[in-house]
Amino acid sequence: MFRTLGLLAACAIIIALTTGAVADESRRALVLSSDFGTTERFVASMKGVALGVDPNLQIHDLTHHIEPFNVWQASYMLAGTIDYWPEGTVFVSVVDPGVGTERKSVVVRTGTGHYVVTPDNGSLTLVADKQGVLEVREIDETVNRRPGSESSHTFHGRDVYAYTGARLAAGVIDFEDVGPLLEPKIVTFNFQQPERLEEDSVVGNITHVEIPFGNIVTNIPKSLVDDLGLSPEDGVTVIVEITQSGKPVFRQQIPYVPSFGYVDEGSPLLYPDSLQTIGLAINSGNFARHYEVRAGADWSIRLTK
Amino acid sequence: MFRTLGLLAACAIIIALTTGAVADESRRALVLSSDFGTTERFVASMKGVALGVDPNLQIHDLTHHIEPFNVWQASYMLAGTIDYWPEGTVFVSVVDPGVGTERKSVVVRTGTGHYVVTPDNGSLTLVADKQGVLEVREIDETVNRRPGSESSHTFHGRDVYAYTGARLAAGVIDFEDVGPLLEPKIVTFNFQQPERLEEDSVVGNITHVEIPFGNIVTNIPKSLVDDLGLSPEDGVTVIVEITQSGKPVFRQQIPYVPSFGYVDEGSPLLYPDSLQTIGLAINSGNFARHYEVRAGADWSIRLTK
Amino acid sequence: MFRTLGLLAACAIIIALTTGAVADESRRALVLSSDFGTTERFVASMKGVALGVDPNLQIHDLTHHIEPFNVWQASYMLAGTIDYWPEGTVFVSVVDPGVGTERKSVVVRTGTGHYVVTPDNGSLTLVADKQGVLEVREIDETVNRRPGSESSHTFHGRDVYAYTGARLAAGVIDFEDVGPLLEPKIVTFNFQQPERLEEDSVVGNITHVEIPFGNIVTNIPKSLVDDLGLSPEDGVTVIVEITQSGKPVFRQQIPYVPSFGYVDEGSPLLYPDSLQTIGLAINSGNFARHYEVRAGADWSIRLTK
Repeated sequence: MFRTLGLLAACAIIIALTTGAVADESRRALVLSSDFGTTERFVASMKGVALGVDPNLQIHDLTHHIEPFNVWQASYMLAGTIDYWPEGTVFVSVVDPGVGTERKSVVVRTGTGHYVVTPDNGSLTLVADKQGVLEVREIDETVNRRPGSESSHTFHGRDVYAYTGARLAAGVIDFEDVGPLLEPKIVTFNFQQPERLEEDSVVGNITHVEIPFGNIVTNIPKSLVDDLGLSPEDGVTVIVEITQSGKPVFRQQIPYVPSFGYVDEGSPLLYPDSLQTIGLAINSGNFARHYEVRAGADWSIRLTK
Repeated sequence: MFRTLGLLAACAIIIALTTGAVADESRRALVLSSDFGTTERFVASMKGVALGVDPNLQIHDLTHHIEPFNVWQASYMLAGTIDYWPEGTVFVSVVDPGVGTERKSVVVRTGTGHYVVTPDNGSLTLVADKQGVLEVREIDETVNRRPGSESSHTFHGRDVYAYTGARLAAGVIDFEDVGPLLEPKIVTFNFQQPERLEEDSVVGNITHVEIPFGNIVTNIPKSLVDDLGLSPEDGVTVIVEITQSGKPVFRQQIPYVPSFGYVDEGSPLLYPDSLQTIGLAINSGNFARHYEVRAGADWSIRLTK
Repeated sequence: MFRTLGLLAACAIIIALTTGAVADESRRALVLSSDFGTTERFVASMKGVALGVDPNLQIHDLTHHIEPFNVWQASYMLAGTIDYWPEGTVFVSVVDPGVGTERKSVVVRTGTGHYVVTPDNGSLTLVADKQGVLEVREIDETVNRRPGSESSHTFHGRDVYAYTGARLAAGVIDFEDVGPLLEPKIVTFNFQQPERLEEDSVVGNITHVEIPFGNIVTNIPKSLVDDLGLSPEDGVTVIVEITQSGKPVFRQQIPYVPSFGYVDEGSPLLYPDSLQTIGLAINSGNFARHYEVRAGADWSIRLTK
C-alpha cells in the first residue's frame, strides 16, 4: 500500500515535470511588442524562432503597431499592459532605431516579477516609473543568440531578443543565465512628473494619443486636480497650456466636465478618463490631429484654474 | 496484477485530469471579438487576464476590427463563425457602447453547444436567429470578476468578460457557476426576415458590407429568388429597392447574373454569393461606398421581378 | 522493484503519448498565410476548423495582409519565413484567385523539411527557388476535407487547406496520407534570376516592395555587384533600368551608397540592404509609389556601371 502510494506520487511528479501543468515556471508566456506591423514577415520569423526553442510555448502579441521608431510609445505599451499578465511572463519589446549602434541588449526583472527583453534605449522609461526595474542583465550573445545567426545580416529582434525571451519563458535558462548583472540603471527619457506648481496650477506629461480617436492621455491624476478645488461637476473652464520642449503649442480655456456629452460637438473638453487621470478630447472630433498635439517625453501640459 | 492494472488506470486518470488531453472540457478554446483594434493595449490586457486564470488556455481572436460601437456587426461576426469551432468553445464579444449603463452582462449557451460572454445589448441578435440561444445566465460579479478590479476604473471587457470567459473555458467554473439563470430572452434588434411578399417580390435584410470590396451581403437565400422564377443564367434585370428605416436610399434596375464578369466594369450586379444568398456588387468597384449603402437591422432590401 | 520500474516506464510512455511533450511529431505548429485580412471572419473560421482536429494545436499567423490575389507575394512571404520555423512545421498558404477552377490542391515537402498546403497556382515559386520542393502530393478530398462541407458553398481555405494542414500538424495523418504523389513539379512563374550579363551589367528580379516605406527588394546579391568592381563606399552612380514585361518603367542614374544618410532627403539611392541584396529607396520617401514601381515575376532590373 505504501509502495502504491509512493508510486502514484512518483507518477504525479513525472507528470508535473513532463507537462508543466504544475511547474508553472515552464509555462511562462512570451509576449511580443514591436513597430514591425503585421503585413511583413518579421513577426512570424520571431515566433518561429521562439517555437524552435520550445514547441509548447504560449506566444502572444502585445501590439506590432507602435509608431515606427517611437521608443516612448513602446514604453507606454509595456507599462500599461504588464500588470495584467501572470508573474513571470516574459515581454520582448523591439522598437530599435539604434540597431547596429552601441545600445545594450538587456533583460530586466520588474518590481512586479515580470521580465522584459529589449534594447536599452529608453523603452523601459515608463516601466521604471510604474512597475520599477529591480535587476538588469546584459544579454550574453555568445550564449543567447540563435545558432547560425552570427553573419552580417543579423535581425536582432529575431536572433537575440525573441530567442533569449523564448529560452527564459521556456525555462531553458534562468534569469541568471541571461548574462552579467549590470547596475540597476537603464536609459530613460526625462519627462514631467505630475506636480502641483503653485497655488493654482498643476503640470504633467502628455503620455499618449489614443488611436483612432485622437484623445490625449496625461499622467495627471484626477486627485491632483481635485486638490486645486476643481470638480468636473462644476463645469468650470481651465487654462490649458501644452508645450513641446518648452515651446508653446496650444493655449486655450477649456471646460472641465464629467464626459463628452457636456460640450457641443466639435468642442474641446477636459475630463477625468477611465484611468482617473486627466484627458483631453474634442467631442466627436480628433484633438491630437486638430491641434497638432502629440505625446512623448518632451510634451508637457499645465492646467491653471 | 490486478493491483498493477488498477494503478495504471489511476495513473491514466491523474494524467487525464492534469493535462486535459483526455478531459476535453478543460481544453475549450477562448475566442475574443471586439471593436478595440490591435494598435492599443486593450486586447493584450484581456489575454493576460485570461492566462492568469489558466496558463494553458488556447486563446484566439475572431476579429478586433469591428466598426466601433457597431453591435449589429458584432452579432454578424459571431453568427458567421461559431459553427466552425468545436462544441464548448467560449466566445467573448465586447462591443459595448453602453458600458457603465444598465445593460446586463451575460453568458449564453447556444443551440450548437457554444458559449458567448457579452453585454446583452443586441450583440446576440444574429446568434439567436441562426444558432439559437438555449440558456442565459447573468454574470455574478461578486464571484466572476478579476480580483482587485473593484475600483472605479474597471474595464469590463478585461475584468469581467475575459475573466469569466477564461474561467469557463478552463473548467474552473461550470456554466451553472456563471450566475443566476434568466429567462432565455435576450436583447435583439428587429430586422427584416427574408420573405416572399407578393406575387413578384421578395424582401430581406442587408446584413453586412464586406471589407474591403464593399460588396453587400443580404439574408435572402437564392432559393427564395428561384421561387420567383428568376435565374441568374437568364440575366434578367430586377428592380432593387434599398431603404434605411423605411426611407428610400437606392432604387434601380440591376441585372441578376451568375458572377462579376457578366457585367461591364463599373456596373452594378445582383448575384448568388458563395453562401447562396443574394449579394450586390459593382464589378471592380465598391457598391457600398458608391451608393452610400450600409448594413444593419434597419437596412432592408426588396427585389421585384 | 522491477515491476515498479516497469510500471513507471509504462506510466512515462502513457504520459508521452497523451501529452505530446516528448513525441515532437505531434507538436508541429500550423502557420496560416492569406490575403483575407483580419477584419472579416474568414481567418477565425480556419482556426476553428483546425482546433476541431486537435484542441492542442499551436496555430500562428504568417500574415493575412498579402495584397489580394497576389500569388507572387504569397510565395515571397513563405520563402522568407519558412527557415525560421522548426522542421516539420505546416504552412497553409491561401491566395487563390482561381478558386473553383482546375488548379490542384497540394501539400509539398520542402528541402528544409517543412510542409506547405496550398493551391498549386504559383504560390510556391520562391519556395522552389530557395528551399526546394522535394515531394508533391495532391490532396485527396474524399478523405481530407472537413466533414459536412461537401455542399456548393465550400470555402477551400477553411474546408480543405486548414483542415488538411491541421491533420498533418497534429499527426492525425502522415504526409503519405495526404493523397497521391505527383511529379515533383509545381506551377511557377518565370522570373529573372540574378546574373552577370556583360562586362558591366547585372540583371535581376524586383521581388518585393516593403510596406509601408516603399523600399524595393531585389534578388541581386551584393556580391554580384562587387564583382562588377562597384563598392557602396565609392558612392559612384549606377544606371538603373526597371522594366515590366520588357516595357521600360524607370531609367535613371542613382548613387550606390552604404545607407540612406548618404543622399539628400527626397533623393533615390541604391544600397546593400540588411539581407545583403541590392535595395532601392528614396531617403525619407517612398520609391515604389513615387516611380510607380511594383514587384513580381515580370518586374526586372538592370544595373550598369
